[in-house]
Amino acid sequence: MAATKGERIALIGVGTIGMSMAALHLARENTIVDVFDTRPDLEEYLLRTLPNYLSDGSSLGSDDSSPTSSSVVSLLSSGRLHIHTSLESACASATIIQEQGPENLAFKRSLWAQVESIADPSAHLWTSTSGIAASAQQSEMRDKTRLLVVHPFNPPHIMPLLEIVPSPATAPERVDFARKYFSVPGSRHRPVVIKKEIPGFVGNRLAFALLREACYLVQQDVVTAKDLDTILMASLGPRWAGNGVFESYQQGGGEGGIGAFLEKLGGTMQEVWDGLGEINVLGNEEWKEKVISQTNEAYGTFTPEKIKKKEERLKDFVKIQEKQYDITI
Amino acid sequence: MAATKGERIALIGVGTIGMSMAALHLARENTIVDVFDTRPDLEEYLLRTLPNYLSDGSSLGSDDSSPTSSSVVSLLSSGRLHIHTSLESACASATIIQEQGPENLAFKRSLWAQVESIADPSAHLWTSTSGIAASAQQSEMRDKTRLLVVHPFNPPHIMPLLEIVPSPATAPERVDFARKYFSVPGSRHRPVVIKKEIPGFVGNRLAFALLREACYLVQQDVVTAKDLDTILMASLGPRWAGNGVFESYQQGGGEGGIGAFLEKLGGTMQEVWDGLGEINVLGNEEWKEKVISQTNEAYGTFTPEKIKKKEERLKDFVKIQEKQYDITI
Repeated sequence: MAATKGERIALIGVGTIGMSMAALHLARENTIVDVFDTRPDLEEYLLRTLPNYLSDGSSLGSDDSSPTSSSVVSLLSSGRLHIHTSLESACASATIIQEQGPENLAFKRSLWAQVESIADPSAHLWTSTSGIAASAQQSEMRDKTRLLVVHPFNPPHIMPLLEIVPSPATAPERVDFARKYFSVPGSRHRPVVIKKEIPGFVGNRLAFALLREACYLVQQDVVTAKDLDTILMASLGPRWAGNGVFESYQQGGGEGGIGAFLEKLGGTMQEVWDGLGEINVLGNEEWKEKVISQTNEAYGTFTPEKIKKKEERLKDFVKIQEKQYDITI
Repeated sequence: MAATKGERIALIGVGTIGMSMAALHLARENTIVDVFDTRPDLEEYLLRTLPNYLSDGSSLGSDDSSPTSSSVVSLLSSGRLHIHTSLESACASATIIQEQGPENLAFKRSLWAQVESIADPSAHLWTSTSGIAASAQQSEMRDKTRLLVVHPFNPPHIMPLLEIVPSPATAPERVDFARKYFSVPGSRHRPVVIKKEIPGFVGNRLAFALLREACYLVQQDVVTAKDLDTILMASLGPRWAGNGVFESYQQGGGEGGIGAFLEKLGGTMQEVWDGLGEINVLGNEEWKEKVISQTNEAYGTFTPEKIKKKEERLKDFVKIQEKQYDITI
């Protein structure tokens, strides 16, 4: 691994995403992580929770080790991890400041105005938001060239994707820096720059487009929620884990590629597109009761043990991608 | 493996899907496969092509063996595989008749009328169509209770999904038989019964819903085709290989499950749903040129070597599912 050149990352807010991000950053050899959160039991919480993330922090470490709270103690004593009770001290020496706070526009605007007044003017400012564009968050900042979205997929210490979404005012070199930071050779992470701000960015737009049709098909009693999940896992999931959607149809079209595919399947495709369900999610929509009850019945509550097993399997899928990510023959 | 009870399958049409289906059926211990196709070089074609599918025919066989044309010769000499030059002889002793002919309504209607006049009245009639419902295909049949769709995903000898789609007239016991046939313990295949006929069935409706938004995002220059594929492979692909979409959001909602998730993300989701791209595929749509040229540039033509490598990886993903398919703790 090429060593990261001494970045010092202040993490504002360490819920589930923040904790996973801490593990991601600490998996780099040459980083220092400063953690700030308003919860009063921050140190006890880190000692208890962070070890669950550290073994998965990167493809670079051994996945067989099982870190305990002593790993966190040693990170603290070696000066690689610092716990802060004020925003000021957390940001004081940071080269990157990344927030995972509440998804609330007023909170984020106020946070960035504060950060701007205390942080080094060269520090990179990243928000892990899934829904609030950088251009909305930065309205109260004097310098609007520094902030951009770094949207991870849950859990970020395992899931390779980071959507980097600049505002129109973000400086191109800030975008480059973020992309390069996550592109360290040997890392499983794959940053992608989104060229325009758009609600849901790209990953969630694709997911929500599929989800809407999935909910519609359950509403229409075409299939149960559980059977729809089986269909997805038994076909599109593994296909899209190995090939993107455009690459899949390039292959599906044979010698003529995706052009031939669109030609051949165009009739069915248009019929499907014209008939896609157009349901709403806000309000007391009738389909929600059906989807929620069928999903609860199928899966119940996720226990920590089940989540752990699911994450182990997710890691297995990602490892296969690492082994043969770029098939270009 | 529980032995299949002496089913004898007539395969009408052996293009790519038919060949893959032949391998799937032959992977069962106790089956006989009768192949009929109008191509004049049928025997030479089977000897050359079928070996590529046989090693992957089932999770039951060894994946390390590399069958050659001698495997096909031995299947022929042992009487497990028969080549026919007439529909009549192919169907004469069949307990299952499965067609993979052209996606053309007139062809299929005429085929089933012929089959009905020559096959045993108890034989099960399956169509591998991706787009023409059984109720449309059976209009010229006297007995409309026997035909149903068995829609595989490409390539069926690897991909676990089979969508079983009866017409309203199909007898429930015919549906049960097909579901059980593909549910042999130890098989990687996962049949799912679709309760109502609908264009695209379920798998392709979900795929096309996502594809429409993918094309729209490329049209809008939010992202390139290649970057969109990276996003999908780095997030939703591996997620949906491990969890269905409803299960994912059940997990994502924490203790409150998918209900809490819809509550929390409802605002962003509605904004995304309201803004999903509504493009068309028929005709000279402007987006098609952009999608086709970006996809061609990113991936070029698929060589047999590249397809083989992609299929190897697909098999790896499916194997992980087999290992830990049902996590119910």
